[in-house]
Amino acid sequence: MREIKINLSESDIPRQWYNLAADLPSPLHPPLSPDGKPISPDMLAPVFPMNLIEQEASRERWIDIPEEILGILYRWRPTPLRRATHLEEHLKTPAKIYYKDESVSPPGSHKPNTAVAQAWYNKQAGVKRLTTETGAGQWGSALSFACNLLGLECKIYMVRTSYEQKPLRKIMMQVWGGRCVSSPSDETNVGREIRKRMPDTPGSLGIAISEAVEDAVSDKTGRTRYALGSVLNHVMLHQTIIGLEAKKQLEIAGERAPDVVIGCAGGGSNFAGLAFPFTCDKIHGAKIEILPVEPTACPTMTRGEFSYDYGDIACMTPLIAMFTLGHSFIPPAIHAGGLRYHGMAPLVSAAIAQGLMAPRAYDQIKCYEAAMLWARTEGAICAPETSHAIACTIEEAVKAREEGKEKVILFNFSGHGIMDLSGYEKFLSGKLSGYALPEEDLKKSIAAIKNFPKPGPVKGA
Amino acid sequence: MREIKINLSESDIPRQWYNLAADLPSPLHPPLSPDGKPISPDMLAPVFPMNLIEQEASRERWIDIPEEILGILYRWRPTPLRRATHLEEHLKTPAKIYYKDESVSPPGSHKPNTAVAQAWYNKQAGVKRLTTETGAGQWGSALSFACNLLGLECKIYMVRTSYEQKPLRKIMMQVWGGRCVSSPSDETNVGREIRKRMPDTPGSLGIAISEAVEDAVSDKTGRTRYALGSVLNHVMLHQTIIGLEAKKQLEIAGERAPDVVIGCAGGGSNFAGLAFPFTCDKIHGAKIEILPVEPTACPTMTRGEFSYDYGDIACMTPLIAMFTLGHSFIPPAIHAGGLRYHGMAPLVSAAIAQGLMAPRAYDQIKCYEAAMLWARTEGAICAPETSHAIACTIEEAVKAREEGKEKVILFNFSGHGIMDLSGYEKFLSGKLSGYALPEEDLKKSIAAIKNFPKPGPVKGA
Repeated sequence: MREIKINLSESDIPRQWYNLAADLPSPLHPPLSPDGKPISPDMLAPVFPMNLIEQEASRERWIDIPEEILGILYRWRPTPLRRATHLEEHLKTPAKIYYKDESVSPPGSHKPNTAVAQAWYNKQAGVKRLTTETGAGQWGSALSFACNLLGLECKIYMVRTSYEQKPLRKIMMQVWGGRCVSSPSDETNVGREIRKRMPDTPGSLGIAISEAVEDAVSDKTGRTRYALGSVLNHVMLHQTIIGLEAKKQLEIAGERAPDVVIGCAGGGSNFAGLAFPFTCDKIHGAKIEILPVEPTACPTMTRGEFSYDYGDIACMTPLIAMFTLGHSFIPPAIHAGGLRYHGMAPLVSAAIAQGLMAPRAYDQIKCYEAAMLWARTEGAICAPETSHAIACTIEEAVKAREEGKEKVILFNFSGHGIMDLSGYEKFLSGKLSGYALPEEDLKKSIAAIKNFPKPGPVKGA
Repeated sequence: MREIKINLSESDIPRQWYNLAADLPSPLHPPLSPDGKPISPDMLAPVFPMNLIEQEASRERWIDIPEEILGILYRWRPTPLRRATHLEEHLKTPAKIYYKDESVSPPGSHKPNTAVAQAWYNKQAGVKRLTTETGAGQWGSALSFACNLLGLECKIYMVRTSYEQKPLRKIMMQVWGGRCVSSPSDETNVGREIRKRMPDTPGSLGIAISEAVEDAVSDKTGRTRYALGSVLNHVMLHQTIIGLEAKKQLEIAGERAPDVVIGCAGGGSNFAGLAFPFTCDKIHGAKIEILPVEPTACPTMTRGEFSYDYGDIACMTPLIAMFTLGHSFIPPAIHAGGLRYHGMAPLVSAAIAQGLMAPRAYDQIKCYEAAMLWARTEGAICAPETSHAIACTIEEAVKAREEGKEKVILFNFSGHGIMDLSGYEKFLSGKLSGYALPEEDLKKSIAAIKNFPKPGPVKGA
C-alpha cells in the first residue's frame, strides 16, 4: 500500500484569500440592526477593529494576505494533502479519498488560520487585548496561540460542558498565556444572569459569545476587541487558504477536480475554507457535490430556518441572514462541542439557499463509528467534529462502490482528537448516551424568530 | 523570521539501520545469566522471538530494513528536520538550533519506529500477542498502534503514577485495540506481591517490566511474547533511522556536521536513535559533543554505577552491563514518566564508559521553564521528557553566545506534550512539587548490587 502525501513548498503557498461573496449568484444579505435597517460600520466599531469590519463587508474576489501573516502561517503551512489509501482498501471502494490535514498546526486544527490573521489586524489597529468564546476549545487555543505570538492579551469564555469534559484544553490556552473561564461565568452581567436562571445549563456558544462581546464593549479604554472563530465573512475568507492549497495539491497529484467536497460545519469555517474555492468552480459550471455536515443534535442547516436572527443568546450581535434554530436554542451536550451552534455562517447559508451545497446530518454514534474505523485504518485519532466529515466520506465512498464509480472525494481533516479522548472512552465502553434533542425547545426557539425579517431578493441584485 | 523546515521525500528514507555495536572501540559486554555465564539465545526464547534475539546479538554495522516495515514507517516518515529560529532569536545566540521532529507520528513520539519493527518481526515469527510496560504512555500507545496495524493483540502494564496522571493515554491505547492496566496490577504474581508489600507505590518501569515479562512467559501456548520500548540493542538499532535521516537533512540544509547532539534519555532509545550515527563519526575522528540528558530525580548516568544489574525489579531479565541505580530503586513520581528507569541502555552505557558521551542531569522545574519558553517562542508543546533535551539545548545555546561561537546544535524533539498538560498546569500554578529523591533508598539499591559482576575488559577485545 503506497502512502500518498502531497506537500507544497513554502513558495507555493497562496498569497491571496478567496472571497465567495464576489461570486454568489445572488448577493449576500447585509446585517441589520434590530430596527431592520442595515448596520453601519461605525456600529460595529466597539466590537471589531475597522480593518476587519471593512474586510467583513468586502465584495472583492481576491484579497492579499499580508506578508507578516504569511510569515506566521509558514510555521505549519502549507498543510499536507493526503490520500486515505488504507480506508479505501478497507471499504473496497473505487473512490479516491483525499483529505487536507489541518491537524498539523500547534493547536491541532484549522483555527489558527484566522486566529493569526485576526490577531494581526487587531494589533495593526492598536488593540491590546482580545476576548472570545470557545466550544470544543480548538478556537480558544488557536487564539491564545496567535495572541502569544503577536503579544496580545487573550481572554476566553469556554462553554461549560467542554470546559468540564476537556480540562487539558484550558491548560493549553494557559501555556500560551490565555485566560480561560467556564461560561456562563460570573464575570459578565449576561453570565451571572444565566447562572441565576439556568444553574445547570451545559452552556452554549450563543451564551459564551454574549459574554465575550459584553467583556469587549464594556472596556471603555478602547484597548479590547472581540474575535469570533467562525460564522463571519472575514473568518471564512481567512480559511480559504485551505481549499486554495488543496487545489494546487490535487493538480500536483495529477487528479481531476473533486466530484465530492465534504466538511463538518458548526459555524462553517473549516468547511468553507475547503469548499469555497470549489464552490467558485461550481458557480462557473463544474459538476461538484458540496456537502456540509452537522450533528442531528444541532440540525441548523437541515431543520433550521433561513431567516434573520441574532448570533448570540443576549441579542448583542446584529441580525444576520442565516440558517438558524433560533438564538435561544441550547443543543444537547454532545461531544462535538464545536458543532453546537444555533446558526450558520451567512456565506454558507446563502450558498445552501442558492442550491450550491447540500447539507447532511449524522448522529454521534455513527460519527464515533466512523472515527474508530479511521483510527484503526489510517492511524490518526480525529476530533469529534471531524468525525462528522469522515462519516459522510465513508457513506460517499460506499455509494461510489455501489455505483462502480471512481469518484474523487475530498474532505477536511479539521483537527485531531487526542485532547478529546473522553468521548472515545464513552463510546468504547458503550456509555455514549444518545442525546435527547429538546424538540419542544427547538420548536419554541424557532417560533420566537417567526417575525424576524426573512432574507428576500436583495435590492440591486 | 524565515521558517526553516527540511522535508525528505519517501525515496530518501534510509534503507538500513545503523548498529553502533559494530564500531564501539571496546566491544559490548554480553548479557549474563544469574550464575555469571553468558546467556544463550535459547534462554531468551520464551521472552522474544528468535529473529529479534539474533538482531539483539548482531555485530553487523548495517542491517537492512524490511520493505514491509518501511511501508508502514512511510505513514509518518521521513520526519521533518526543523530549525528553532524563534528560540534562537529570543536567546540572541549565534548558535543554529536544529531539531528532529519525532512528534509527528500518530502516537506522538519516536516510539513507533521500533514498535512497528518489533510487531512485524514478532508476526513473522508466528507470535499473536505482545505484552509490554509503559511509563509515560508513549511506548504503550505506540505498541498498540503498531499491533493494530499488524493484527496482533496487545496488553500494556502502565506505571501507576502515569496511569493516574494521564487518563487519555490509556484511552488512546484502547482506540487502537490495546488493553492497558495500572501497574502494579492484580493480574500477575509479581504485581500482587508488590501491591501487598507497597500498597502506595507510584509504580516504576522496573515493576511494570516484571509484570509484562511474567505475563508473556507464563502463556504456555507460545503465542505471546514480550516487547520492550527501550534499553535493548535492537530497540536502539530501530531508532537510528532518526539520526540517519537527520544527517541527510543537515546536508540538504547546507550545514556542516553538528557540534553538539542532545537527547533526553530514560532507557536511551530516542537519544540513541539520533546520536548513534553521529557517535560513529566521532569514533572516526569528528569533534562532536554528545549529551544524553536525564532528570536529577532519576540520575542513572550521572550518579549510578557502571555494573551488571537486572533490568527489572523481580530479577526476571538477564544481568546486563549498564549504568544503573540498582534494580530496586523507585524514583519519585516526576512528570517525565518515561525517564523514570533505574538503568540505561547497554549501548549508551558503553559509549559513556568509553568517553564518547557526556551525560547531564536537570531538575524538573528547570525543564518546565525550558518547555514554557519553547511553547511561547516555537509554539509547540513538548513532552515532559523532551523538555530535558530542550533545557540542555538552551544551556548550550547560551554558552555559544557567551563564547561567541556559531555552533550547530541538534536535538531530538522526541514527543509532544499535549496529553501531558497536567504537569504544565501544576508548573503554571506554582504547585509543581520539588521531588524528594529518596537518597537512603538510592544508597541501598546501589549497595545491593555491589557484589554483581563489574564490566571489565572483554575477552578478545
